[in-house]
Amino acid sequence: MLEAIFSPRSVAVVGASPDPDRLGHVVLKNIIVNGYLGHVYPIHPSATTVLDLPAYPSVLDLPEAPDMVVIVIPPQHVLPVVEECGQKGAKGLVVITAGFKEVGGEGKELERQLLAKVREYGMRMIGPNCLGVIDTVSDLNASFAALMPEAGGIAFMSQSGAMCTAILDWSKLQGIGFSRFVSLGNKADVDEVALLHAWDHDPHSKVILAYLEGINDGPGFIAAARKVTKNTPVIAIKSGTTAAGTRAASSHTGSLAGSEAAYEAAFHQSGILRARTMNELFDLALLFSYQPLIQGNRVAIVTNAGGPGIIATDAVERSGLKMATFTQETVAKLQAKLPPTANFFNPIDIIGDARSDRYRVGMDAALADPNVDAAIILLTPQAQSDLIETCQVIIQLSQLYGKPVVTSFMGGYSLGPAVEMLSANSIPNYTFPERAVQSLSSMVRYNEWRQRPAPKYRSFEVDKDRVRTLFASVREAGRVELGEIEAREVIEAYGMRLPQSRLASSPDEAAKIAAEIGFPVVMKISSPDILHKSDIGGVKVGVADATSARDTYELIEYRARKYSPGARIWGVLVQEMVRKGREMLVGVTRDPQFGPLVAVGMGGIYVEVFKDIAFRLAPISEREVSEQLREIRTYPLLRGVRGEPPADIAVIEETVLRISQLVTDFPEIVEMDINPLVVHNQGEGAVVLDARIILK
Amino acid sequence: MLEAIFSPRSVAVVGASPDPDRLGHVVLKNIIVNGYLGHVYPIHPSATTVLDLPAYPSVLDLPEAPDMVVIVIPPQHVLPVVEECGQKGAKGLVVITAGFKEVGGEGKELERQLLAKVREYGMRMIGPNCLGVIDTVSDLNASFAALMPEAGGIAFMSQSGAMCTAILDWSKLQGIGFSRFVSLGNKADVDEVALLHAWDHDPHSKVILAYLEGINDGPGFIAAARKVTKNTPVIAIKSGTTAAGTRAASSHTGSLAGSEAAYEAAFHQSGILRARTMNELFDLALLFSYQPLIQGNRVAIVTNAGGPGIIATDAVERSGLKMATFTQETVAKLQAKLPPTANFFNPIDIIGDARSDRYRVGMDAALADPNVDAAIILLTPQAQSDLIETCQVIIQLSQLYGKPVVTSFMGGYSLGPAVEMLSANSIPNYTFPERAVQSLSSMVRYNEWRQRPAPKYRSFEVDKDRVRTLFASVREAGRVELGEIEAREVIEAYGMRLPQSRLASSPDEAAKIAAEIGFPVVMKISSPDILHKSDIGGVKVGVADATSARDTYELIEYRARKYSPGARIWGVLVQEMVRKGREMLVGVTRDPQFGPLVAVGMGGIYVEVFKDIAFRLAPISEREVSEQLREIRTYPLLRGVRGEPPADIAVIEETVLRISQLVTDFPEIVEMDINPLVVHNQGEGAVVLDARIILK
Repeated sequence: MLEAIFSPRSVAVVGASPDPDRLGHVVLKNIIVNGYLGHVYPIHPSATTVLDLPAYPSVLDLPEAPDMVVIVIPPQHVLPVVEECGQKGAKGLVVITAGFKEVGGEGKELERQLLAKVREYGMRMIGPNCLGVIDTVSDLNASFAALMPEAGGIAFMSQSGAMCTAILDWSKLQGIGFSRFVSLGNKADVDEVALLHAWDHDPHSKVILAYLEGINDGPGFIAAARKVTKNTPVIAIKSGTTAAGTRAASSHTGSLAGSEAAYEAAFHQSGILRARTMNELFDLALLFSYQPLIQGNRVAIVTNAGGPGIIATDAVERSGLKMATFTQETVAKLQAKLPPTANFFNPIDIIGDARSDRYRVGMDAALADPNVDAAIILLTPQAQSDLIETCQVIIQLSQLYGKPVVTSFMGGYSLGPAVEMLSANSIPNYTFPERAVQSLSSMVRYNEWRQRPAPKYRSFEVDKDRVRTLFASVREAGRVELGEIEAREVIEAYGMRLPQSRLASSPDEAAKIAAEIGFPVVMKISSPDILHKSDIGGVKVGVADATSARDTYELIEYRARKYSPGARIWGVLVQEMVRKGREMLVGVTRDPQFGPLVAVGMGGIYVEVFKDIAFRLAPISEREVSEQLREIRTYPLLRGVRGEPPADIAVIEETVLRISQLVTDFPEIVEMDINPLVVHNQGEGAVVLDARIILK
Repeated sequence: MLEAIFSPRSVAVVGASPDPDRLGHVVLKNIIVNGYLGHVYPIHPSATTVLDLPAYPSVLDLPEAPDMVVIVIPPQHVLPVVEECGQKGAKGLVVITAGFKEVGGEGKELERQLLAKVREYGMRMIGPNCLGVIDTVSDLNASFAALMPEAGGIAFMSQSGAMCTAILDWSKLQGIGFSRFVSLGNKADVDEVALLHAWDHDPHSKVILAYLEGINDGPGFIAAARKVTKNTPVIAIKSGTTAAGTRAASSHTGSLAGSEAAYEAAFHQSGILRARTMNELFDLALLFSYQPLIQGNRVAIVTNAGGPGIIATDAVERSGLKMATFTQETVAKLQAKLPPTANFFNPIDIIGDARSDRYRVGMDAALADPNVDAAIILLTPQAQSDLIETCQVIIQLSQLYGKPVVTSFMGGYSLGPAVEMLSANSIPNYTFPERAVQSLSSMVRYNEWRQRPAPKYRSFEVDKDRVRTLFASVREAGRVELGEIEAREVIEAYGMRLPQSRLASSPDEAAKIAAEIGFPVVMKISSPDILHKSDIGGVKVGVADATSARDTYELIEYRARKYSPGARIWGVLVQEMVRKGREMLVGVTRDPQFGPLVAVGMGGIYVEVFKDIAFRLAPISEREVSEQLREIRTYPLLRGVRGEPPADIAVIEETVLRISQLVTDFPEIVEMDINPLVVHNQGEGAVVLDARIILK
């Protein structure tokens, strides 16, 4: 897939110009000078040669159908050229030309037509409005970038062309290499999803990096990422999150869930490692592209200085990695071969005057130890340091044991050749130890993700038809919000427990129903127009006898009419009074990119004041709901504190999964809340006390 | 102070050797070749010259008393030499020799003797066991470091010699300069406190950096830092914190407070900026040493690319800084002079083809705007970029407006000369924008600290004598833990409110006291040997009448005798039943370095499960206690949520301050808890329900 773009046998450049100031000239030159071995065809209206290559007046005049055509001409001329490409049988396009969707108005329409044309002929297109495409595997630089990157194991895509330029420039200095390097531009056709698919199982790409500003097709992105991340690590930075981020406090989960929460959930549920900064993005990229995957979380440190050893140890403990405990054999080896003032336990301190032989002893012992999953080698330049020999030892032993090895050679001035040697031999070096540790820690998380069995989704037997019919009738009535009784019906149809409840339409009927349910009862005004019933005094708990029930009916009805004049009043709901339990909230909002986002938290102050809530995108797997619940800070309260018995956590999880099934079955639900879900002790179930559902 | 070490008129080197492999040779050479203009005297037992300088057999033979003597000889010979230094009238010593406290045993004793000798003659000493001292102000490199740093505005101290080497090496490459550079070694005499004092008001040091592994004199450090940070920013990295960090859950604040909490509080209360990583340490150092202090938190961004602009904006919002809102005048200026596709609002996007003239327009408009406190200039290298001219504009305008300016020129390969030019002209450049933003954010925090008025300490009228007498009697009785009645007496003497309470020694007396206090009452076993009274059923609340009081007395006494056989039983305490309120915990532990550490949190699950607790070191100022309380996540519950009235926050603060005064007055209190402090609504006060006090 996308071979026409990443390994074309021939490339035509429309807009190739003899004028070196024109972009088309730069692109053609980049293709020629960087070693591309396929056929290259400049297209120019009048020139017979461009850059010594025979030029053709149009794509139609070419001696063969070009695999790929790069288009670098003013926007108004693009469409006819694309038509010619299609007719000629071109397969892939890279449209560098700007002036499409990003300028709005006519540009937007032009892009629509462009895409239609591309689709008509079954071609694939990168851009428009991009820097181009670079592929070191086929030595093809089809871009106007000033630099050609080194070859390497990183496949990179970016929605920002400027970021491409900056990163090329930066990586050139750092000696970092790329396999594929794509500026996505307006991503009218090929987007991040298409590239994820294209790069899945790519033998040249050990890690995929993405700079994203937005995602068009959320579910498609998640599906692709889930698949790809099982083979290849994907590291993404998503910018532009704060403005759209989680909004300030509110009692509704709707306003707690911003699209930042959706992105976070999407990355989490699809195994994408999210970098928080550009530095972190490349810290991780180096480790993943250079070193084998870590198999556990136990780290050994070898250092020629105490201070950096302490710093690294702190970082290990803080990052959730473990300092490896050596076997007796390892300690004995170290004691036998290192000076007595050395430290034989982790971190192994081989002392300031250590030369490469001591690095060999320390590193060999550590990597041979079955309790060690990775090694961090620290070096501060001392008078006795033999840097190049030490690098040789590190390179040799890292290859011998196949466990990830990272270094922090701390310094600069005297380290140049050593650091270059490490980089050239795929040992990631970090100026200070903390970033080495953080990177390993992310690798451990990725390994855990990869080890996971495929997600299991529970499917509950539910009465889908009943809900479908109900929604139809609500829509027919011209409403979008379900009344309480309707919401109850949905909850019931999806197998969740509700308190017994019946609608009374007179004081006497209320008393009768209450007696049948059993005192005490709860009474609530029933109206499709009153959302916050408590606020107008429309709810009364602990109604103890028939007289009270009659009085309460009258009072509640009176208040509803007084404070919500014009509201339709269906009567008063008489409900079983549910015994106390831990109150949870389960809410759903529909994210424009990613679909239903399900929130869970403990109700009341925990959600309202502490914003203690965890999100997952539906459909939610068994493992995901379990993690979701454990993510909230109040989880210990569910497990039981101060001698309390645990809550029925299994039922909370099941409730979330049933909701997940409901909102997946009915995409027309744009918002819903169960608040509260009263959860009893383990084995005793949970009851939905109140539910709100809003349709599209 | 310490002039003899930082600007000596003469330096002798004991151990100066003609053998280039000896450290003494290296040190002497470093002094000679780096431009030091004072007198230099090699001391060597036999040589007549060393490195072409006339040598002397001993310090006693010198033609003058040397200001400073550097000692680089085996440890067993150090003491006699120091004696000679003292006799000759030397003022400062730098003892590079290792083999003292750090090797334990005899070395420890040797160091004690060394220090005694130094004190005897009123000299000051750096070391022993250090790399030496470098001072670029007097061009003095009295160390065995391989490199002499550039001159610059950073004064640096490090407890790790290896860290010194690494940082010298690193900074040499980065073009970062130092004023003073000190390897503290064992810091037998001169320690971080002495250096803080020495560097206060140092015109050559714009910022002080410290790498600390431990602090000897906590209160001295805080006092010195508080003073110095009002003039000069101090940035510290403290390693070795995780192992000794806050321990796992427990109901006692004692075990919640680790020394990590004490360090955090110490840095916070003394205005020290704490760096979490080595990278952050130098990110901040550059900003503070290069740029003027920021005066507010409103940031303008000028960029030639959208993506990096978004990244920087995200970082600004996340860091607590504000994106500046431009005046209409500024927007008009930008509109008049930038192309129509530019963005005239913050971030100012001057578009990819921007040359230095557009940078001038954007930056000039931003810095002239009264709503802007600092500017971040972003650049990704584009074909049209004129890097050197752009640097010139940045340098010129940053000097013109006197507001801090930082850059992120993103890239590497093509940026070398530009980045060097920025650095040489005191513009801190960061490879990626996030770190520029983080550094500015720390500068804003520092500015806020500097603007603060001097801390105000309240002094309450208390009955100190009563507590002194009481503690004496407890010690006389051979106890360290106060009984409940004794603890109550202390609380009362320090002006905190207690429930009415009297000790009954029979069932009838209990009934009588209860009637006088007024039913219902609480009854508790009174015994110095039973710490957790509830656990053995020794507490009963809501005792409603005389009969119950009699029964309860018998029951509680029976249980105490049964479950705590041998415990001394003083009777049963009959207490006023305090009406409900919000329950707080105020605890004190004594940190070995920093003294009394006062913890505040909401009681029950908030402290036990959520570890929601904030720490300050006593004595605590009015502002500090106010911040401490606002730091706990549960603070909104005190302010009142869901329509609750606010709690009496003033009384909580006062209680903490009274406790702060108590533990400051009585250093023999090693641990105490008030748990719970029942806090009523605003204006209604608070009552101490239970208190524990443990003496040394």
